[in-house]
Amino acid sequence: MADTMFFEDFAVGQKTESSTITVTEAEIIEFAKKYDPQPMHTDPAAAQTITGGLIASGWHTASLTMRLLITGGHYNPAPGTLGLGFEHLKWVKPVRPDDSLRLLLEVIAVRASASHPDRGIVTNRFVTVNQHGETVQEMVSSAIVPRRAPQGQQP
Amino acid sequence: MADTMFFEDFAVGQKTESSTITVTEAEIIEFAKKYDPQPMHTDPAAAQTITGGLIASGWHTASLTMRLLITGGHYNPAPGTLGLGFEHLKWVKPVRPDDSLRLLLEVIAVRASASHPDRGIVTNRFVTVNQHGETVQEMVSSAIVPRRAPQGQQP
Repeated sequence: MADTMFFEDFAVGQKTESSTITVTEAEIIEFAKKYDPQPMHTDPAAAQTITGGLIASGWHTASLTMRLLITGGHYNPAPGTLGLGFEHLKWVKPVRPDDSLRLLLEVIAVRASASHPDRGIVTNRFVTVNQHGETVQEMVSSAIVPRRAPQGQQP
Repeated sequence: MADTMFFEDFAVGQKTESSTITVTEAEIIEFAKKYDPQPMHTDPAAAQTITGGLIASGWHTASLTMRLLITGGHYNPAPGTLGLGFEHLKWVKPVRPDDSLRLLLEVIAVRASASHPDRGIVTNRFVTVNQHGETVQEMVSSAIVPRRAPQGQQP
């Protein structure tokens, strides 16, 4: 696991890469039956004519991306880090059974908070890729990240 | 279930509302253990001090919103309708055990495709609300929607 990262530890251009997870047909169907019950996600035979075979719900891909963020070993934000939401979420290519996914993070903006000297805002580009290195999902997210040593305070 | 909706059936300002679903503590924990294993989502005791009790993963809220879109009875897009991704996804308020969620859709843009006369782009604002009418999530999404009768073709 990476070292705990405070605001001071982020810089524009930093890149990290998670470990991989493989998604099974059973998991794709189980997720979709609960959250996105459409035939291309739940019925391998019907999916054949719709999308050339079963594809994962985009929300499943997004949820797997979250799992990679938390358990991928490359990103260990300080306690109190708080995601603010997501922008520009695009499903670029379908995820299919037995695909192995990996999350690439790149810091694209770092901004001190004007109102709260004990924290800052870090913006990351999230790119989820498959085993062929093809992008399956991309999005941008900003998070509030605590500083290691608040300005104007000495321990 | 609403009538099947082709591109011609959408107009800016149209509003629809889904049925409701209730989310249980067990489902919040099950989702989070798989996709967002952080204590405020998986451990009711630890969550008490972090977030005043268990809260659902934002991706769980997003996935439940997708379920409301597909099964909520208010939105029945024509076969071939294809979501293009999402913008401005914000988790406004936490979802907690036994909350009942409802999806409000509003058409905010309708645009004929310049390159494909058989389809158009419809943009919706998605607002997910709880049983108190409070917004828990909002986002904007565009989809490609087939036309009922392609321009220049007469049956």
